[in-house]
Amino acid sequence: MRVAVLNGPNLNLLGTREPDVYGRSSLAEIEQRVRQAAGELDVTLEWAQFNSEGDLVEAVQQLAGHADGALINAAAYTHTSLALRDALLAVQLPFVEVHLSNIFGRDAIRRTSLLADLAIGIVAGFGGLGYELGLTALVSHLRER
Amino acid sequence: MRVAVLNGPNLNLLGTREPDVYGRSSLAEIEQRVRQAAGELDVTLEWAQFNSEGDLVEAVQQLAGHADGALINAAAYTHTSLALRDALLAVQLPFVEVHLSNIFGRDAIRRTSLLADLAIGIVAGFGGLGYELGLTALVSHLRER
Amino acid sequence: MRVAVLNGPNLNLLGTREPDVYGRSSLAEIEQRVRQAAGELDVTLEWAQFNSEGDLVEAVQQLAGHADGALINAAAYTHTSLALRDALLAVQLPFVEVHLSNIFGRDAIRRTSLLADLAIGIVAGFGGLGYELGLTALVSHLRER
Amino acid sequence: MRVAVLNGPNLNLLGTREPDVYGRSSLAEIEQRVRQAAGELDVTLEWAQFNSEGDLVEAVQQLAGHADGALINAAAYTHTSLALRDALLAVQLPFVEVHLSNIFGRDAIRRTSLLADLAIGIVAGFGGLGYELGLTALVSHLRER
Amino acid sequence: MRVAVLNGPNLNLLGTREPDVYGRSSLAEIEQRVRQAAGELDVTLEWAQFNSEGDLVEAVQQLAGHADGALINAAAYTHTSLALRDALLAVQLPFVEVHLSNIFGRDAIRRTSLLADLAIGIVAGFGGLGYELGLTALVSHLRER
Amino acid sequence: MRVAVLNGPNLNLLGTREPDVYGRSSLAEIEQRVRQAAGELDVTLEWAQFNSEGDLVEAVQQLAGHADGALINAAAYTHTSLALRDALLAVQLPFVEVHLSNIFGRDAIRRTSLLADLAIGIVAGFGGLGYELGLTALVSHLRER
Amino acid sequence: MRVAVLNGPNLNLLGTREPDVYGRSSLAEIEQRVRQAAGELDVTLEWAQFNSEGDLVEAVQQLAGHADGALINAAAYTHTSLALRDALLAVQLPFVEVHLSNIFGRDAIRRTSLLADLAIGIVAGFGGLGYELGLTALVSHLRER
Amino acid sequence: MRVAVLNGPNLNLLGTREPDVYGRSSLAEIEQRVRQAAGELDVTLEWAQFNSEGDLVEAVQQLAGHADGALINAAAYTHTSLALRDALLAVQLPFVEVHLSNIFGRDAIRRTSLLADLAIGIVAGFGGLGYELGLTALVSHLRER
Amino acid sequence: MRVAVLNGPNLNLLGTREPDVYGRSSLAEIEQRVRQAAGELDVTLEWAQFNSEGDLVEAVQQLAGHADGALINAAAYTHTSLALRDALLAVQLPFVEVHLSNIFGRDAIRRTSLLADLAIGIVAGFGGLGYELGLTALVSHLRER
Amino acid sequence: MRVAVLNGPNLNLLGTREPDVYGRSSLAEIEQRVRQAAGELDVTLEWAQFNSEGDLVEAVQQLAGHADGALINAAAYTHTSLALRDALLAVQLPFVEVHLSNIFGRDAIRRTSLLADLAIGIVAGFGGLGYELGLTALVSHLRER
Amino acid sequence: MRVAVLNGPNLNLLGTREPDVYGRSSLAEIEQRVRQAAGELDVTLEWAQFNSEGDLVEAVQQLAGHADGALINAAAYTHTSLALRDALLAVQLPFVEVHLSNIFGRDAIRRTSLLADLAIGIVAGFGGLGYELGLTALVSHLRER
Amino acid sequence: MRVAVLNGPNLNLLGTREPDVYGRSSLAEIEQRVRQAAGELDVTLEWAQFNSEGDLVEAVQQLAGHADGALINAAAYTHTSLALRDALLAVQLPFVEVHLSNIFGRDAIRRTSLLADLAIGIVAGFGGLGYELGLTALVSHLRER
Repeated sequence: MRVAVLNGPNLNLLGTREPDVYGRSSLAEIEQRVRQAAGELDVTLEWAQFNSEGDLVEAVQQLAGHADGALINAAAYTHTSLALRDALLAVQLPFVEVHLSNIFGRDAIRRTSLLADLAIGIVAGFGGLGYELGLTALVSHLRER
Repeated sequence: MRVAVLNGPNLNLLGTREPDVYGRSSLAEIEQRVRQAAGELDVTLEWAQFNSEGDLVEAVQQLAGHADGALINAAAYTHTSLALRDALLAVQLPFVEVHLSNIFGRDAIRRTSLLADLAIGIVAGFGGLGYELGLTALVSHLRER
Repeated sequence: MRVAVLNGPNLNLLGTREPDVYGRSSLAEIEQRVRQAAGELDVTLEWAQFNSEGDLVEAVQQLAGHADGALINAAAYTHTSLALRDALLAVQLPFVEVHLSNIFGRDAIRRTSLLADLAIGIVAGFGGLGYELGLTALVSHLRER
Repeated sequence: MRVAVLNGPNLNLLGTREPDVYGRSSLAEIEQRVRQAAGELDVTLEWAQFNSEGDLVEAVQQLAGHADGALINAAAYTHTSLALRDALLAVQLPFVEVHLSNIFGRDAIRRTSLLADLAIGIVAGFGGLGYELGLTALVSHLRER
Repeated sequence: MRVAVLNGPNLNLLGTREPDVYGRSSLAEIEQRVRQAAGELDVTLEWAQFNSEGDLVEAVQQLAGHADGALINAAAYTHTSLALRDALLAVQLPFVEVHLSNIFGRDAIRRTSLLADLAIGIVAGFGGLGYELGLTALVSHLRER
Repeated sequence: MRVAVLNGPNLNLLGTREPDVYGRSSLAEIEQRVRQAAGELDVTLEWAQFNSEGDLVEAVQQLAGHADGALINAAAYTHTSLALRDALLAVQLPFVEVHLSNIFGRDAIRRTSLLADLAIGIVAGFGGLGYELGLTALVSHLRER
Repeated sequence: MRVAVLNGPNLNLLGTREPDVYGRSSLAEIEQRVRQAAGELDVTLEWAQFNSEGDLVEAVQQLAGHADGALINAAAYTHTSLALRDALLAVQLPFVEVHLSNIFGRDAIRRTSLLADLAIGIVAGFGGLGYELGLTALVSHLRER
Repeated sequence: MRVAVLNGPNLNLLGTREPDVYGRSSLAEIEQRVRQAAGELDVTLEWAQFNSEGDLVEAVQQLAGHADGALINAAAYTHTSLALRDALLAVQLPFVEVHLSNIFGRDAIRRTSLLADLAIGIVAGFGGLGYELGLTALVSHLRER
Repeated sequence: MRVAVLNGPNLNLLGTREPDVYGRSSLAEIEQRVRQAAGELDVTLEWAQFNSEGDLVEAVQQLAGHADGALINAAAYTHTSLALRDALLAVQLPFVEVHLSNIFGRDAIRRTSLLADLAIGIVAGFGGLGYELGLTALVSHLRER
Repeated sequence: MRVAVLNGPNLNLLGTREPDVYGRSSLAEIEQRVRQAAGELDVTLEWAQFNSEGDLVEAVQQLAGHADGALINAAAYTHTSLALRDALLAVQLPFVEVHLSNIFGRDAIRRTSLLADLAIGIVAGFGGLGYELGLTALVSHLRER
Repeated sequence: MRVAVLNGPNLNLLGTREPDVYGRSSLAEIEQRVRQAAGELDVTLEWAQFNSEGDLVEAVQQLAGHADGALINAAAYTHTSLALRDALLAVQLPFVEVHLSNIFGRDAIRRTSLLADLAIGIVAGFGGLGYELGLTALVSHLRER
Repeated sequence: MRVAVLNGPNLNLLGTREPDVYGRSSLAEIEQRVRQAAGELDVTLEWAQFNSEGDLVEAVQQLAGHADGALINAAAYTHTSLALRDALLAVQLPFVEVHLSNIFGRDAIRRTSLLADLAIGIVAGFGGLGYELGLTALVSHLRER
């Protein structure tokens, strides 16, 4: 089972960026933990981060045929990228939406998602642990099909 | 560590109620799985379900001093009960908001929550498994404090 | 054929409550007339009134398997109770929505219904007679299926 | 007692027009049933259908002095014709608003009526039977005055 | 100088229609007074009333080349007829908008006009006298050009 | 019969201020014409202009007992002054609202009036002539009472 | 003179619940002070608190014939309970709306009240003292009738 | 293959009406060009223009059984006629929506269409040529079915 | 302890202005009663009324250093004066907002206050008595600090 | 005559992406057909597709001096890219907006275009044929200038 | 070259008023610095401050013929005074809008300006320095004309 | 002191792009002038322009540790890029927002900024001079810290 984890803009700054909101772990540390969890679940993991909307769109396009499911934390593009939504509609791959912070406790623009209704489900507010929980949910969903 | 799981209106009908939306497990079956997970995490679990807003409000009030955290699936009251929000504000207990279905893929009234900004985080869309993931996140949060 | 008639909050005050809006018949007098109409239609009638949202939700839940259809005048809960909508979605019972007053000639909050799109149809503005008309429509609907 | 039944645009297509929404009876068949019900209630019935807003406005104008009450199914003009509302305000005739389909379960534009607050009441969702129920309610209202 | 006076739906009922709102003069009495005022101003007057939007649209179309200006009381079509607006845009004839009642003290839908920004100006609230005032203003406007 | 004409802010600049919108007559020239018309109608005229909201409010207050009616062109305060509305409600004096320009063909903020529903009626778009027409309407209204 | 004081959800937690918002007095301490003030005003006092909307609705229903007026602090139900509004409309009892906190300085949902237009008046922001002030106002209102 | 071209209000004025917006060709000249294109495509063409909403509704009704598809330029009724939408829903005939001007560069009321979601597609902004393009698209659609 | 009472526009007309809304006491009579209450509370009272927004702004500015608190009934400026809000923000003086009428039972524009969130609290609906109650609350607040 | 065809995000997936919405032709097949049509019209064609907003912006910038007109199907960026609008404003090149699907029959976010008011016109809903029709319209527009 | 600097309500309190928002310089100190900068630019400076809207309106009116340009910091009237906008429209004098604080980081009501679209440009957020920058921009604009 | 100037999409076209809106200076000419001003202020200047949102986001990310402050003219991304906002939140660098045109006099979408509340302040409407003024303000801010 192959799972891709796609991270959106500014997540490369994790750990230094607004630590009160996003926590003190770097993205590499989170990747580390998720890779370990993936190993225990017998899952091959692809991991990537993009600051450009177009790059993220193309990464989603290339999932078709190369992954069984995805974890997507599109960060700011969650709320503004219709192109990303279209890419997800096109590839029809099961995915879980992950957010480090509890987006429901933040400003209004972050409370709407252009992607969430396409997802299996959403995990938000638990920092890096949310990726592990999302992976568990995704794998469970893929195995039950 | 004591954790309460409070379920809102109509969740007593799980398994027979709109199975395409909410899945085919009964609430008792979900409770069973969550109790097992709680055991593995060394957590004492309280489990309850209420159809009345007032009863749910009082159940939240009584958490103060009797639980270390809560999982709350307030179902329809998530979207309409300001009294429930006030009770959660009053007891100041850490909690995780859980939904069986992906509320972001449903009708507009279910996309706003009167509780979510008070929660640690939210897990939605994974059926009964969401309770287990939420419990993991809650326990992790309580242990890190 | 078994039909339940469920009445919402403050309908127990009928006859004394704002008679210019709701008419001068008591709820008992209306029940009397509807029971007689039910008898002529060979229908067994359950009749109840609830001031609490939770009680009304549970009454709807218990219709499953015990009634073939329902007349529902949820009064104020028509406009505010998502829990009641969920209960009606869960039991999937054919029902007719009844209102004593013409809700379209009243304040804005009473012009939207959280239940009406689930109903077979609606009868509003004819006082107690509306229950009899609604019963006729419900029975006709049930017999045609 | 004289009652006019005025039907709005496209109702001449009943039976062939979107039968899943409006049913399979033609307008002539509905007229037939309503005439029979009128006979039993000792009511003289006028029946007409108009595709033009202006013709419908004039038909309402001519009710003054020629009818004691009316059933009005203005179809699409229910939601767009202020001129029709003005005609009903001018003639001050008691009327019942009838709709074949449950307009509350349809698109948003059909959920507001420019006429309903002027009506005695409304019957919607019961197909042709709704005319008979509306006639009963109208006659009851006229006899009680 | 030729001036057309075009009246919209339900104005044929003036005098009997809601006299508290529209006054007790019939449209014929108003016409009488306006014809006399027109005579004093050396103006040839066309006078017409239409209940149908299409007829009013065509009457406006035919003004081109046959009138130097118009008084238009489009009644309910003031607020709903984009076709009437288009006809006025097409003929490019100077006109004054007249209303018998003070439309600003009535319901919200009557406070917006689809025509008023095309008019020279507006006179509202003075009953039949408003036509005479509007005629004075129109003639003054035409003579000053 | 005593009539007061109250003019709002910036009307002292008439003739030089945006002549394409407001015309080329000065306020004094308009006053001249209106005084002449008043003389013909046997009306005593008070004429004033105010740039301050408070002064305009007090001028309205002092109308009570000193005038039989008023023409009010409150200019910008038409759209923003609730205090002016309150003063007009307090003195209960019949008045006509006058505007030099056609406010319905201008920006959105000028299309709502906080005063108009209290007026007998409105005259807008005819420059200084509008005051004369408004005076005629006001006098007619006062004489008919 | 008999006065009822009805308190809504979560007010039983006063003193411990968000003391920065609601103050440090318990509801019992407030009751104590109000009872003393009632004694001085020669008023018999009923005092109750409810967490359930339905219970509060029924408490209002039972005021009819048993109290001359009421102080109502409906807490969260102030903003969400149309059923409570209907009960107050039904019993037609003079009442004063009381809030401990200044609801106008809080979140938007607390700035609209479904009850306030039915009240004699409102007192908000003065903690427990507000009940005493409200009682004074209510008694003054009742004595002046 | 039979195709009907239905034109809405004021299109009879083409060529003289706002030529900067709608171009300088008359409707007859456009008809001429479209008839020639139809001939080349082996299509029989019906061509009509209506100023009345009711007439346009009836023209659509009569398409059933008499045409294989339609080009519809409903002009102002595009934006206001729910009755026309209902007629198109009733006859279920494939049609292309045509506009002479680019409605997206005009006032807001012209940017929403009550018909467009029912159409195969839309062609707007190309003057009379748009009819020819629309005919090509319609014929292609009909031949591919 | 020095307290200023600042009254806004049109309050000088009290007693004659809309007595059904504002009561029959003149502002001088209310001042009389409040001065007596102030005497009993050992409070020195400043009392003023202003029709001009600028004057009211300056009166608030001059409170700094000359008063310990204020009662403010800004009347219409409550709802429209951001300058008054800024003055209150600048002087940082504790104040109570008072309204004679129940502003929550009036038109929508009177239901929002630009000042209320800055106040200690609000008293509305009790006529002149409201000033006395507001004074009590203000003094209590000042003494408790 | 040189024409550029610029395609936006995800159009590289045509044929496999949601074929019920976008049809079964690949972008290469559409390009093939459009090149053939261009040949017949004596037009040199540039063809490109971009997933990145910035790349599409730069492609538009480079049209200046290199193309006489353009066909633009910006896909998702149609609805979200103000930068693209600015590029089109900057180069001032005549263009036709093309959409494969009928965007008016889809979700609300796709019914507004940030580009359409700048275009000559729009063609939507006819799949790949729309490009050919758009090319015809563009060439006709360029030749008529 | 003559430049007027007009300051709106509450700016006389600068230095003491909310120093965290507006800084600690008094208005006199800012005037001092701006006068020095004006001297260096060979500009004659008028400086004034007004708490009353009417006074500010009249000050703007008197600029005509007495100044070549203006700096305007209308404070709260920026957001509420249509009369001020009208005065600026009337005198047609080039002006720069200045704000001490960054109005875009404050409450919503301060983010819209009734004046800004009439200005050459805006400078906000730099305290007293903003006046100097605005003066530089204004002088540059006047010299380039 | 190191200052970066970051320019957004389409600013590379300055001088040729809509010169009536943006002026006739090229971006290179503006850079020239700003470099000279920077020299006088003893500031090292970085200057860059980006058409891609992702490139601009990364340029902001790289400011951390490499610049003391920034001038940002994000052009169209000012109004649409939440990712840019997040990058600015992450690096926490003081910056001034600059716009060549007066964005408050343009279309509505350009009147809201996703960045401005994070800035020290804003300068808009003065063409290239605005960069120099912004630089002065930024340097003054950095030196005062």
